[in-house]
Amino acid sequence: MSDRVAFLGLGAMGEPMARNLLRARGELRVWNRTAAKAEALRGLGATPCATPAEAAGGADIVMLCVPSSPEVYDLLTRPDGVLAGARPGTIVVDCSTIAPSASIQHERLCAERGVAMLEAPLSGGTVGAKAGTLTLMVGGDAAVLERVRPVLEAIGKNIFHLGGAGAGQTVKLCNNLIFAAQMVGVAEAYAILVRAGLDAAKATDVFLVSTADCTAVRQRVPVAGVQANAPASNGWAPGFATEWMAKDLHLAQEEAKALGVPCLQVSLDHQLLRIAMQMGYAKLDLSVVGKLIQDWSAGTPEPS
Amino acid sequence: MSDRVAFLGLGAMGEPMARNLLRARGELRVWNRTAAKAEALRGLGATPCATPAEAAGGADIVMLCVPSSPEVYDLLTRPDGVLAGARPGTIVVDCSTIAPSASIQHERLCAERGVAMLEAPLSGGTVGAKAGTLTLMVGGDAAVLERVRPVLEAIGKNIFHLGGAGAGQTVKLCNNLIFAAQMVGVAEAYAILVRAGLDAAKATDVFLVSTADCTAVRQRVPVAGVQANAPASNGWAPGFATEWMAKDLHLAQEEAKALGVPCLQVSLDHQLLRIAMQMGYAKLDLSVVGKLIQDWSAGTPEPS
Amino acid sequence: MSDRVAFLGLGAMGEPMARNLLRARGELRVWNRTAAKAEALRGLGATPCATPAEAAGGADIVMLCVPSSPEVYDLLTRPDGVLAGARPGTIVVDCSTIAPSASIQHERLCAERGVAMLEAPLSGGTVGAKAGTLTLMVGGDAAVLERVRPVLEAIGKNIFHLGGAGAGQTVKLCNNLIFAAQMVGVAEAYAILVRAGLDAAKATDVFLVSTADCTAVRQRVPVAGVQANAPASNGWAPGFATEWMAKDLHLAQEEAKALGVPCLQVSLDHQLLRIAMQMGYAKLDLSVVGKLIQDWSAGTPEPS
Amino acid sequence: MSDRVAFLGLGAMGEPMARNLLRARGELRVWNRTAAKAEALRGLGATPCATPAEAAGGADIVMLCVPSSPEVYDLLTRPDGVLAGARPGTIVVDCSTIAPSASIQHERLCAERGVAMLEAPLSGGTVGAKAGTLTLMVGGDAAVLERVRPVLEAIGKNIFHLGGAGAGQTVKLCNNLIFAAQMVGVAEAYAILVRAGLDAAKATDVFLVSTADCTAVRQRVPVAGVQANAPASNGWAPGFATEWMAKDLHLAQEEAKALGVPCLQVSLDHQLLRIAMQMGYAKLDLSVVGKLIQDWSAGTPEPS
Repeated sequence: MSDRVAFLGLGAMGEPMARNLLRARGELRVWNRTAAKAEALRGLGATPCATPAEAAGGADIVMLCVPSSPEVYDLLTRPDGVLAGARPGTIVVDCSTIAPSASIQHERLCAERGVAMLEAPLSGGTVGAKAGTLTLMVGGDAAVLERVRPVLEAIGKNIFHLGGAGAGQTVKLCNNLIFAAQMVGVAEAYAILVRAGLDAAKATDVFLVSTADCTAVRQRVPVAGVQANAPASNGWAPGFATEWMAKDLHLAQEEAKALGVPCLQVSLDHQLLRIAMQMGYAKLDLSVVGKLIQDWSAGTPEPS
Repeated sequence: MSDRVAFLGLGAMGEPMARNLLRARGELRVWNRTAAKAEALRGLGATPCATPAEAAGGADIVMLCVPSSPEVYDLLTRPDGVLAGARPGTIVVDCSTIAPSASIQHERLCAERGVAMLEAPLSGGTVGAKAGTLTLMVGGDAAVLERVRPVLEAIGKNIFHLGGAGAGQTVKLCNNLIFAAQMVGVAEAYAILVRAGLDAAKATDVFLVSTADCTAVRQRVPVAGVQANAPASNGWAPGFATEWMAKDLHLAQEEAKALGVPCLQVSLDHQLLRIAMQMGYAKLDLSVVGKLIQDWSAGTPEPS
Repeated sequence: MSDRVAFLGLGAMGEPMARNLLRARGELRVWNRTAAKAEALRGLGATPCATPAEAAGGADIVMLCVPSSPEVYDLLTRPDGVLAGARPGTIVVDCSTIAPSASIQHERLCAERGVAMLEAPLSGGTVGAKAGTLTLMVGGDAAVLERVRPVLEAIGKNIFHLGGAGAGQTVKLCNNLIFAAQMVGVAEAYAILVRAGLDAAKATDVFLVSTADCTAVRQRVPVAGVQANAPASNGWAPGFATEWMAKDLHLAQEEAKALGVPCLQVSLDHQLLRIAMQMGYAKLDLSVVGKLIQDWSAGTPEPS
Repeated sequence: MSDRVAFLGLGAMGEPMARNLLRARGELRVWNRTAAKAEALRGLGATPCATPAEAAGGADIVMLCVPSSPEVYDLLTRPDGVLAGARPGTIVVDCSTIAPSASIQHERLCAERGVAMLEAPLSGGTVGAKAGTLTLMVGGDAAVLERVRPVLEAIGKNIFHLGGAGAGQTVKLCNNLIFAAQMVGVAEAYAILVRAGLDAAKATDVFLVSTADCTAVRQRVPVAGVQANAPASNGWAPGFATEWMAKDLHLAQEEAKALGVPCLQVSLDHQLLRIAMQMGYAKLDLSVVGKLIQDWSAGTPEPS
């Protein structure tokens, strides 16, 4: 008999993921802090639940997707939370991006109740969530992953098992720090190009076939008009909001500190995103760091 | 009648470029500071010349490829230099990566003698030089470029016209600063992965299909054994030497300063490469910055 | 009748502070994790106690000096801790340097038991602790401070009231981040001087009467032999250990983040100290960052 | 017979220095690019000259004070410049802050004409220039310094001989990089204090007796009203303009690069001052970097 699935957290990522699960499975128990978002899926076959416990109680697999570790902890441990409702043998799949140490703690809390937990942070953004082509970076027991893999294939194209609890989160944070480094490099490069009066579109053509090629060049040139779908051409609409990347870079630094790894560039990039946030750009796509540096470049050069 | 071509500077990049020109054209006037390198091409049809002036005197197109602007200046202006030998109407193509301001100055020196100059810095490294698949970032007169394009197609697959003198150099420096940013991000990420005891090869598989995807991930994972052709698996043999990237980041900063663009990340990355140089890694591939950060990560974490 | 005082935590700072209190007051209840250190003070009139609760139970004022907030929390809340033994009306004075948010939390825990808490982080190092000339940066109720001021004057020369709970910690962290900035600046300057072959002692004479003048120049020139009492002339013995300054810079960053203040330099200095720690310098005086940069400067300069 | 002295460059520093020389010596040959400034000193006994050559021709000692090395070079070598007018045996004292390598080059140009040159960059700002209490960091021949010392004592209280040509400039740059490090640390600390709602004046009292004590705390607290004479209380009037400190940090980096010394903090501080310049603060006192960071701190903190 098929596994029954519950999905908790219908935000910008979770909502389209839930729709893909509904499309694939016909049914889904759903819960969201704001109940209206859960109700909205009823017409597609979803069963809105009043509490996380109720959602989990009728499910074999419980998926979570919320913004940060205190919310995961709360969803799991509140009096009407997942662990209050879940039967032993239930599997929790947490798609949130949080600190590896927090994820390890959550896995232990679940294990104490006989519940298995996988972490499965995502890459691919809202575009990938809608298309069902997300990348999942899974940490936890490999056999448990094989058990839930058919369910996860409704939301993701690439499902990687990376190690025990924490491993998926660590790889996710590393992925994001590399992406942030690209983005800041791209921001500085285009600020130079713009001030030099060069053609940003032509330069982009070069970068795409040279060593500069990277996701940030392919998707997020920070000059309006160069790429029709880039945030810069669409009022810096995310995409991936600056404040969330700032959060991830903070987590990456905490992980680096715990491991004894000095990370100068992550640390700098974090501060740059924080300056962007303080300029009012927190909710805009992280490529807005390009605007920040171009804003700084409108004055006069220093004396030599 | 076909243009006669001279090639000056048979270093790690120039030598395979000259071979490709010889293969395509059957003949080539060559000069190199160390004459033996020029002599070695005689068997392939090359005509070694005693001085830059002699090489230029019998050529319609004179190509240069040397490490830095003082050497370009010297090649052009010395008593037995290019401008002493070149007839009016000759075209100089300088493939060196140098400061845009220096390139603009060189173009003026040429113009005073009736010689046209294009700058055409390269991307693609020694691998691209051998394969004849380099990217050329051309600055200078567009009509002059069309005149020499058939010659350049023997060495490069992608030939971009980016604007007047200086434009090619600026785009090249921007390309390299983005690449350096990727590389430092990759260095920090893999130091975290290694210290966390995770499988670097599996993480690489994730990065290649996620936002971390970039040239540095594709070609230069800084952990031995993950990629057979990466410098890390081959004793950090370049590739692209740390000292040359340091030079380019310095030029990028000077250009940014002249334009009034604050560039915090380029500035940091430059310092990191300089530390790597001071550790004795100057001649090694720039991915050795990954080793630098892993070296720093062998101790104990700080108290909390 | 005079207040009875207890002192908990006889480390590098706490031990000489306890001696000064004993000298001034003739008696002192003492407790330390390693009991031998408490026993060693018996001859001076101290009363060693078996538990924090026992020490607090017989005291009107309970002073704490431990390395970090988990230890303060533990001392207060453990079953045989301060709050288990203290009567309502007792005053706790915490001399530890910890996060302002943690200190605020501790004050609330105390208040729930009718115990008043002051934070009083210190400046002056082991030298000031021995001489009784420490600076105390007090946060908490002003009237409570006036009540305990006579006791504190046995250990400190400058006792400042800076605001409510958290204010003293915040000022302390700000003090330390300025000191760290001086120290890193001094480290870079002397690395330049040494490599340039200049006389570091003469340069120091200049700095002491110029804008470079600061505590780091006065006490911690990172070249052996320039200052007889500086750590550099004494095998980098602390003074103020690198790992503790790293801790404080981390706390400063967390505070800055909570307040929405981007702090690029603190962030960089933190990473530099962490690199020093990873080189094995964690227990050495923070001026060892000067050695770190001189170590980096032994190689060859980059090509230009 | 007494040495005849000429003074070239009557800017913000040079003009009050010339007045002190006039006061001490009764006479002075003066030249300035804008002649009116030289004429204005005629009433005090000065002899305005039409060209640098004319000023130098009648002098035994020629003092220069201009903003940057191209101007020093021009003053020395132009057709009507110092070296065109000076007799062999003349002594040039250059008080400008410039690159050590440029100063060494200038000394050689002078030596070719039989003219001795000392570099003597200054510390003390316009306040010290007016009071005649400048610090002079002299590089060049020690015997030549002894010959001119009586003249220099009219402008400076502390006259240090630091080594041969370049040594004075190097020490000056090191002094300024330490001062900049203090200033950025102070900027970050007070941004935290202001956002935390604490009393900046009380915190300053603490810093002045703690390890944070430094010139930046003593003279340049970046909060209006704390110190009556600080730039922050006077519309950020310099003092020491941001653009000039940016210039000096650039020179310090070039010197560090030439010597093979990685300098991460100088590099960061340079970028911060450049951002301040781009915000329109170039002519304001460098303590305006405190305003820059406070400007960044007005928004909302990042999610955790």
